[in-house]
Amino acid sequence: MTPKAKQEIERADVIVGYATYVKLIQSVIKPDTEVVSGRMGREVERARTAVMHAIENKRVVVISSGDAGVYGMAGVVLEAAALEKVAVPIEIVPGVTAATVAAAKLGAPLVSDFSVISLSDLLTPWSVIEKRLEAAAEADFVIVLYNPQSPGRTAPLTKAHEILLKYRKPETPVGIVRLAGRDGEEAVVTTLKAMVDAEVDMVTTVVVGNSTTRVVNGRIVTPRGYDFSK
Amino acid sequence: MTPKAKQEIERADVIVGYATYVKLIQSVIKPDTEVVSGRMGREVERARTAVMHAIENKRVVVISSGDAGVYGMAGVVLEAAALEKVAVPIEIVPGVTAATVAAAKLGAPLVSDFSVISLSDLLTPWSVIEKRLEAAAEADFVIVLYNPQSPGRTAPLTKAHEILLKYRKPETPVGIVRLAGRDGEEAVVTTLKAMVDAEVDMVTTVVVGNSTTRVVNGRIVTPRGYDFSK
Repeated sequence: MTPKAKQEIERADVIVGYATYVKLIQSVIKPDTEVVSGRMGREVERARTAVMHAIENKRVVVISSGDAGVYGMAGVVLEAAALEKVAVPIEIVPGVTAATVAAAKLGAPLVSDFSVISLSDLLTPWSVIEKRLEAAAEADFVIVLYNPQSPGRTAPLTKAHEILLKYRKPETPVGIVRLAGRDGEEAVVTTLKAMVDAEVDMVTTVVVGNSTTRVVNGRIVTPRGYDFSK
Repeated sequence: MTPKAKQEIERADVIVGYATYVKLIQSVIKPDTEVVSGRMGREVERARTAVMHAIENKRVVVISSGDAGVYGMAGVVLEAAALEKVAVPIEIVPGVTAATVAAAKLGAPLVSDFSVISLSDLLTPWSVIEKRLEAAAEADFVIVLYNPQSPGRTAPLTKAHEILLKYRKPETPVGIVRLAGRDGEEAVVTTLKAMVDAEVDMVTTVVVGNSTTRVVNGRIVTPRGYDFSK
């Protein structure tokens, strides 16, 4: 968490967030702050609640994990606010997103161009996700997969794996990080072929190397192209 | 800067970094810390210097701006260390990368899948960059351009603009942020057609919306697909 995010949480009159994320910041929340915690899938409701409190001139902080602008609450809050007749000032506080936290844990897989793709087809049609996987794989982007799998949703990762294998060698380095940057963080360095054997759930970030990515002393590195012979 | 990064800088025996970035953290560096600042383009030299000091059992911190793993020093340091016979422990400390800082300033353009592409053809052949631009544009990724232009390198941005216009409408929202997260930060919301009129240099991050991205109350938002009618 950045000092700016911590400061805003401490100064808030109201905190609105998904219950799991509110728990993660419990130690930072002041005792007299009102907390509105909500359920997964109720993002529009939370955004509206936040905007309503802001219209009442309260200082409201909406919590996301990682960076609020990467599959987080930033967009839905701006959209909810735009639907109201009263203007409320909104500031988006950037954070450290799971892609770069996972990358740091794994080594330096993102030192070249990369694509970030969510495998959740709840809000994005699978055909769009599939097209992006094909394009990113073919153009040799390092690929970061968010929301790769949940107990009720395993087909997208299986299909993504098939698509990636069409364009990348089976031995392409793959990094799998659970709970990136949180307590219990776990990282595994594996290969594209073997990644299906790893435990992957909703709190996992998967990083798939490009054609130049290699494992150096157990860490995944995508060379930036520097010449070490001089 | 995250608390973890600040802590590591304060604990360092030696700080190695590009002179401009060392200046940005001057206030955090303890008076008795050795500082080795270097020039742009001498990344391999800086990485080797850092590894040499680490082999002498010094606590060394290598500085990058933004996130060290996104076009930063993380990879070159891991590679330099791997060439030595003596193993040195290396920890990559994640940071807040320009893409998400710029996105936060602009609104919420990255709330859907996105690709990060550097337009610098110093280390990556232009043909590879071009292929990635085509693929990302065609597959409707939001696109973040790093290192878009320098006084001696203006052709890549002109070519990128042409490629993007093949796949995206001229009125596609584009955000241009100079000095994201630093003193003097400036953000402009414009369109794909008009982006060529904006001032763009090496410290600028350009965010190009996808087919669904729109401007909401002056902010760039890529809808995540939530239903506001309920």
